[in-house]
Amino acid sequence: MSHNTFGHLFRVTTWGESHGPAIGCVVDGCPPLIPLTEADLQPWLDRRKPGGSRFVTQRQESDTARILSGVFDDGAGPVTTGTPIAIEITNEDARSKDYGDIARAFRPGHADYTYQAKYGVRDHRGGGRSSARETAVRVAAGGVARKVLGEAVRIRAGVVQLGPHRIAPEAVDFEAVYDNALFAASADVVPAWEDYLDGVRKAGSSIGAVVALEVAGVPAGWGAPIYGKLDAELAAAMMSINAVKGVEIGAGFGAAELSGDDD
Amino acid sequence: MSHNTFGHLFRVTTWGESHGPAIGCVVDGCPPLIPLTEADLQPWLDRRKPGGSRFVTQRQESDTARILSGVFDDGAGPVTTGTPIAIEITNEDARSKDYGDIARAFRPGHADYTYQAKYGVRDHRGGGRSSARETAVRVAAGGVARKVLGEAVRIRAGVVQLGPHRIAPEAVDFEAVYDNALFAASADVVPAWEDYLDGVRKAGSSIGAVVALEVAGVPAGWGAPIYGKLDAELAAAMMSINAVKGVEIGAGFGAAELSGDDD
Amino acid sequence: MSHNTFGHLFRVTTWGESHGPAIGCVVDGCPPLIPLTEADLQPWLDRRKPGGSRFVTQRQESDTARILSGVFDDGAGPVTTGTPIAIEITNEDARSKDYGDIARAFRPGHADYTYQAKYGVRDHRGGGRSSARETAVRVAAGGVARKVLGEAVRIRAGVVQLGPHRIAPEAVDFEAVYDNALFAASADVVPAWEDYLDGVRKAGSSIGAVVALEVAGVPAGWGAPIYGKLDAELAAAMMSINAVKGVEIGAGFGAAELSGDDD
Amino acid sequence: MSHNTFGHLFRVTTWGESHGPAIGCVVDGCPPLIPLTEADLQPWLDRRKPGGSRFVTQRQESDTARILSGVFDDGAGPVTTGTPIAIEITNEDARSKDYGDIARAFRPGHADYTYQAKYGVRDHRGGGRSSARETAVRVAAGGVARKVLGEAVRIRAGVVQLGPHRIAPEAVDFEAVYDNALFAASADVVPAWEDYLDGVRKAGSSIGAVVALEVAGVPAGWGAPIYGKLDAELAAAMMSINAVKGVEIGAGFGAAELSGDDD
Repeated sequence: MSHNTFGHLFRVTTWGESHGPAIGCVVDGCPPLIPLTEADLQPWLDRRKPGGSRFVTQRQESDTARILSGVFDDGAGPVTTGTPIAIEITNEDARSKDYGDIARAFRPGHADYTYQAKYGVRDHRGGGRSSARETAVRVAAGGVARKVLGEAVRIRAGVVQLGPHRIAPEAVDFEAVYDNALFAASADVVPAWEDYLDGVRKAGSSIGAVVALEVAGVPAGWGAPIYGKLDAELAAAMMSINAVKGVEIGAGFGAAELSGDDD
Repeated sequence: MSHNTFGHLFRVTTWGESHGPAIGCVVDGCPPLIPLTEADLQPWLDRRKPGGSRFVTQRQESDTARILSGVFDDGAGPVTTGTPIAIEITNEDARSKDYGDIARAFRPGHADYTYQAKYGVRDHRGGGRSSARETAVRVAAGGVARKVLGEAVRIRAGVVQLGPHRIAPEAVDFEAVYDNALFAASADVVPAWEDYLDGVRKAGSSIGAVVALEVAGVPAGWGAPIYGKLDAELAAAMMSINAVKGVEIGAGFGAAELSGDDD
Repeated sequence: MSHNTFGHLFRVTTWGESHGPAIGCVVDGCPPLIPLTEADLQPWLDRRKPGGSRFVTQRQESDTARILSGVFDDGAGPVTTGTPIAIEITNEDARSKDYGDIARAFRPGHADYTYQAKYGVRDHRGGGRSSARETAVRVAAGGVARKVLGEAVRIRAGVVQLGPHRIAPEAVDFEAVYDNALFAASADVVPAWEDYLDGVRKAGSSIGAVVALEVAGVPAGWGAPIYGKLDAELAAAMMSINAVKGVEIGAGFGAAELSGDDD
Repeated sequence: MSHNTFGHLFRVTTWGESHGPAIGCVVDGCPPLIPLTEADLQPWLDRRKPGGSRFVTQRQESDTARILSGVFDDGAGPVTTGTPIAIEITNEDARSKDYGDIARAFRPGHADYTYQAKYGVRDHRGGGRSSARETAVRVAAGGVARKVLGEAVRIRAGVVQLGPHRIAPEAVDFEAVYDNALFAASADVVPAWEDYLDGVRKAGSSIGAVVALEVAGVPAGWGAPIYGKLDAELAAAMMSINAVKGVEIGAGFGAAELSGDDD
């Protein structure tokens, strides 16, 4: 059994390999009459797309999303129709030959071996299906979801830890995130973090990070008991992103130290 | 809740409108290591594609399927990898303007009104999502399924009734089906059926038909009790095709007259 | 993969064998605040329960449904709470020993062989899981669904053909159904049908039948395109009932002979 | 949409309220021919059941599981048949009246308000559906899963942090877990932890904890890309347990500080 679909009422099925001709998704269950064009999706994709700084993959992709179905313009601008929304992004910089040397190697910490063990075959070019490139279509689908959510639900996020360097909770400033190449949630840490990361790069290594998200305006009652509770769905979604190994919600592990005395 | 997915382990999600830029599907759950190229799909699509005779829609489409993901050629030819197989067919002859006159009309016997009532909006061009054009991608997905099934399971089908004209069960000849423009399961009826259908066409009308399928080589135990039994899945699949209003399996309604005395 | 669940938003999972200790179901997704007690379910179960005439199984079961979860009485009578509704019916007349002689036989026209082939084991007592006894819990779940539907949607059904004997469409009278032991949709045919069926019984045989359903008051837009359209869901549900081999909706196979000239 | 089902091929649907007549689950998709009796489930339930020490709820429940379907003894002992396994636990100590005082209160940190906001009604007795009592049937279903897994996959767990008190990773001893009332993964900490917890209790408060699990023998390839990857499924399952607010797998958040230099 394969499982490339996320969500229940609003369901996203993604497809595509890192170095295939394209990647894409089908959003099924989107409510009708939501105004939607590619211009609603592109700003999110532009924020994510590679090649923007020396700190990210140097692959050159415009990550231009095309909407192939599910919207209709009856004179007042394109709106969703309740039918499946197919979104497609062409892979423009798929350099398959670059991977010749590691075609037969299993990279530590990647899904290479797992795919080979599970399926007996894998598209080794850039990680194939297991590439983080898959997250591009999540971003596109998320752009549709944002339109459904409207303005009431506000979501902000940023990097709050890079390797051993943390931003103190009281210093987190989500407004700073898109003003620096590291998506750091504080302008103050950027010079030091860039120096640190340049050192990691020069050592031919890489380093992890922690991302914080703040979601405001969520009505009580979203999600569904018991196995679809909001915490559970969010945790699964986060854990399905490449390299994510931990999820905390609210007080997270700190809740272990909370007692009624703290109230 | 929308529901554009069929199947359980082998799941097909379809998308696309009759006069949008393209239609397509995602096949998730296909086993790995199945040899698969577009050439495996095209013969089935060619049989179905429009424009082949005066008896079918005059729309001109090559119905060329492109496989965008889920296959990989590691030197011995493309095989499936267990990841989602995205298949896409460009709409080449989408004449949106032709539908100007009926844009606001609800055609009897079509899903026009239902879509409008359900969603408050519909792509009226050629029936939009409810067009029989959606079946083209089912054919493509079915082509993948055929590769999975291999030679052991043999499926044949043909038209056995056109309006009031029936082919007697003992005269059904599935070998004749692709030698005539009506897909009739008997060469003998073709001249009379063509005359009959020309008359219907000249009257500006249309007429129904009954299709028989013969499936051989199915192992005992396929399907799943109770709500996924093979009969139930097949009936649902058939009934999801435009205009299908009846399904019989085996003796069908004739089973009502069977008794132990008949053994 | 097993598949003992039916429905999407309103989902019914059934369990139980013909001669196990009990049978039951879990209804998940029932809206909250629907008044519901066992008294809402029992009339439907009483109509179905065995032992009521010489024409049905002689097994003696009260088929008393107990609701074990999902309802709460906060002072104004029990209502659904949106949580799963577990319904259970004890098997009171499970005579396992009666089946000793046929424990190793595969009954023609039954699922015996299929279960054995699929699973390598089966509960042979009374057909085990494949027994029509499973339909008792569908009736209970249907009783819940009726409460959700309310009065607006009206459903009537009755037997319209018994073996070769048919009730003419214009003679169908659903009001007659519960006044005769054969559930015949016409009082006129009952004496002749009883004689016919007594003959079949005395011959140690059995005979098939056709049931007609009339559903009124369904709003436009129920069901979901494309693979969850109402016709498809109903066809699957019907075909999942033991021995059902054909389903027609609306004009059914008669639609093949309909043309615009008939309008 | 409600969502009381977990799993894909092996699916568990749970039902029941804390103070209703019973709780239970249906396990669908269990492979056939697995030896299974209540005796396989009871040891796990006994470990979890309340009333065993002063540190847990004082509710008195034997938590005796009954298997009502899905197993059959054809002479060599009961085995699963591939059909749904219904498991039921009677609530023996449902003291509804005890909750009179807080029937209308929303307890902080509980799901009381959420259920009320979502459904407009809730069974307030002991938390109703949101009670941790629901986990008893997970344990029963887990007992079935253990039989399917067999000996190859080994799972151990224990409490490694209680409030601010942690067991150092190198001191974790899962063998100690069932020898103390706190399920502490170290015998050494037990006296101090008991003193600490008694203090919390006397203050009329409560405190959190962290549980560590060790799973060994998992074959490469379990789970399914991308949205059903093992990490994601486990995270969702954990997060669906009452009060769980954080999940780490492998190095967890510590992975943020890992770099190639650490190899």
